[in-house]
Amino acid sequence: MLHRSINGGIQRAVATQLAFSRTMITAQAVAYSKYGEPKDVLFTHKYEIDDDNVPSDSIVVKTLGSPVNPSDINQVQGVYPSRPELTKELGTSEPAAVGGNEGLFEVIKVGSGVSQFKVGDWCVPTSVNFGTWRTHALCASEKMTKLNNPTQSKNAGKKHSLTVDQGATISVNPLTALLMLTHYVKLQPGKDWVVQNGANSAVGKFVSQIAKILGINLIGVVRDRDNLQALVDELQQEYGADKVITEEQNESRDFSNEVKSWVKETGGDVKLALNCVGGKNATALARKLGQDGLMLTYGGMSFQPVIIPTAVHIFKNVTSSGFWVTALLKNDPELKKRSLDQIVEWYENGQLKVAKSNEVKFDGSDLAKVYTDAVANSKQGKQLIVY
Amino acid sequence: MLHRSINGGIQRAVATQLAFSRTMITAQAVAYSKYGEPKDVLFTHKYEIDDDNVPSDSIVVKTLGSPVNPSDINQVQGVYPSRPELTKELGTSEPAAVGGNEGLFEVIKVGSGVSQFKVGDWCVPTSVNFGTWRTHALCASEKMTKLNNPTQSKNAGKKHSLTVDQGATISVNPLTALLMLTHYVKLQPGKDWVVQNGANSAVGKFVSQIAKILGINLIGVVRDRDNLQALVDELQQEYGADKVITEEQNESRDFSNEVKSWVKETGGDVKLALNCVGGKNATALARKLGQDGLMLTYGGMSFQPVIIPTAVHIFKNVTSSGFWVTALLKNDPELKKRSLDQIVEWYENGQLKVAKSNEVKFDGSDLAKVYTDAVANSKQGKQLIVY
Repeated sequence: MLHRSINGGIQRAVATQLAFSRTMITAQAVAYSKYGEPKDVLFTHKYEIDDDNVPSDSIVVKTLGSPVNPSDINQVQGVYPSRPELTKELGTSEPAAVGGNEGLFEVIKVGSGVSQFKVGDWCVPTSVNFGTWRTHALCASEKMTKLNNPTQSKNAGKKHSLTVDQGATISVNPLTALLMLTHYVKLQPGKDWVVQNGANSAVGKFVSQIAKILGINLIGVVRDRDNLQALVDELQQEYGADKVITEEQNESRDFSNEVKSWVKETGGDVKLALNCVGGKNATALARKLGQDGLMLTYGGMSFQPVIIPTAVHIFKNVTSSGFWVTALLKNDPELKKRSLDQIVEWYENGQLKVAKSNEVKFDGSDLAKVYTDAVANSKQGKQLIVY
Repeated sequence: MLHRSINGGIQRAVATQLAFSRTMITAQAVAYSKYGEPKDVLFTHKYEIDDDNVPSDSIVVKTLGSPVNPSDINQVQGVYPSRPELTKELGTSEPAAVGGNEGLFEVIKVGSGVSQFKVGDWCVPTSVNFGTWRTHALCASEKMTKLNNPTQSKNAGKKHSLTVDQGATISVNPLTALLMLTHYVKLQPGKDWVVQNGANSAVGKFVSQIAKILGINLIGVVRDRDNLQALVDELQQEYGADKVITEEQNESRDFSNEVKSWVKETGGDVKLALNCVGGKNATALARKLGQDGLMLTYGGMSFQPVIIPTAVHIFKNVTSSGFWVTALLKNDPELKKRSLDQIVEWYENGQLKVAKSNEVKFDGSDLAKVYTDAVANSKQGKQLIVY
């Protein structure tokens, strides 16, 4: 049963009833064959991988860790615009897809024609919709992109090596932050400013850190709270934000003079706004932009739309666009590789830190239950299943 | 008294008390030395132009016509972002500026070093803030851009020649329509679609006509009214709109299937939306755009901001930008010249028509009163002062 799935990823799955060799790997994947709430539709599918007969262009990988992202949940619900095809690749009775888009893998077997991987290498899926909620995968080698494993980092004289948490969560949030800051607007280090809301979000913390590394001044907007000063201190001292302001300050006309004085002092301009909130918060962000500024919207936590005053569009020539890392990188594996390498280098140099996920160790029990529980717990913070 | 004004336009003004030569032209201009309501601040300033001693790089022009645009009024009120410097160029006791930005002029005297103009040529100001509410002007020749006069059009074998109304109102509305349709998005004739609101506005009618000339399919949104069918017929038969829909249809989710079927039929996509209204109307316009579509906002008649749903930004990669013909052409006289030539050619071929202005003939009485009355009447339609 060899099929090439339309969405990429060659899966040569041998249904369990065909198992005959003692070297077969029994793999497990968390799949769904219809859309719905994860607890209702996710099931564990077991299948075997014949690791004695790996096709020449393929590799076998075992999973080191894969997280639960909000977009993964939306995919299972059928409400996310990007989703894998449902197929019978893995030998399911109904067409199905494996959940998950991010994950870190270790190569355990290499086809005879594969030169870019060797056993022990670490890698992440080259594209989304790979299906990372599984114990193992057999795939064409180009479906994976290599990252330094700890031995390689050490041999290269790096200060740190990638953790499983860092590697398994590298493809969405750090790339989103990096690409929003570097792919659209030329920012002059030391002079120009970026303003972002949701500064306390996972992406927001990467934005602050990467802006600091790049020498770009940053204003982060956060919700007011009782222990505001503690959060301000954290975002400034731990994550490198230059200024942290509240939503009320962001929306205050008076306070905008304060912002203008900061910008004037550096001799630059506010050239980029990063919005993951929407509504009045986004409007106030757009108003902070200078002439010809750009606002990128990558989320809508308030469930309010993006609102741009007409005069800001016409007379300040401010542009409002969307940012979706999936779409940007879909047809540009080179850009993805370059961006991943940059993030890895910063991790290795200790310049970047990840807000730690809640790690759940897979204990060999029912895999679908492990991910279903993680989905339920994901409001308490990012859940990472490690193997 | 020779001064070079910062905003361009060399004005060599000789104050009336210095008049000594019988060949002096007594010119009149409608000026203001402080911002406010036009009726409160506009005054007539008389000054003389020595047309026997025209500097070698300069020309003397007489005005054939100049309109009152909403932005001209906002300039006098001091609330428009682009405005002329107040100077004493014309010999006013206080620093002042001349009103008006559009106008058609005829060359009546040419400096010895000027080769691109001869007496009898027609021209329009190369840039905004020239001050077109006046009877005559002396200016450096590069401050004017030549258009065909009736004799030149006839000699070139053209079907029509430019009317004063067409020439005097060519720089804002027709260029706005042409440049929005051609400068940003590549539209495939016969296949792609543009959707615009304010389809019954002056710019809207130019957009419909130019889209028709270019072979681009167009949907125009208008307000519902008692005699809707008459307006629909006019916009389709006189101005070439393919489809005319009401604001209610524009905002209806059900009706969007109808729009989708039109687009499907031509095999193209809705690639461009032109918004001069804002609010829900603009949101519905943005929703009609296909993947990677662009909405240009050039006005805000509803006084509501531009509202873009987050998912439209992120997942459809729709961009929302502003359009301001003044800013676009400020540093690109070549683009302006090319665009003007295109519009003139369409007028000469009879492919384009202008919604006629209300013409007021200057009778030699007080010029400021003529323009002040025109400002007061401008809600009844575009006012054009002809000389």
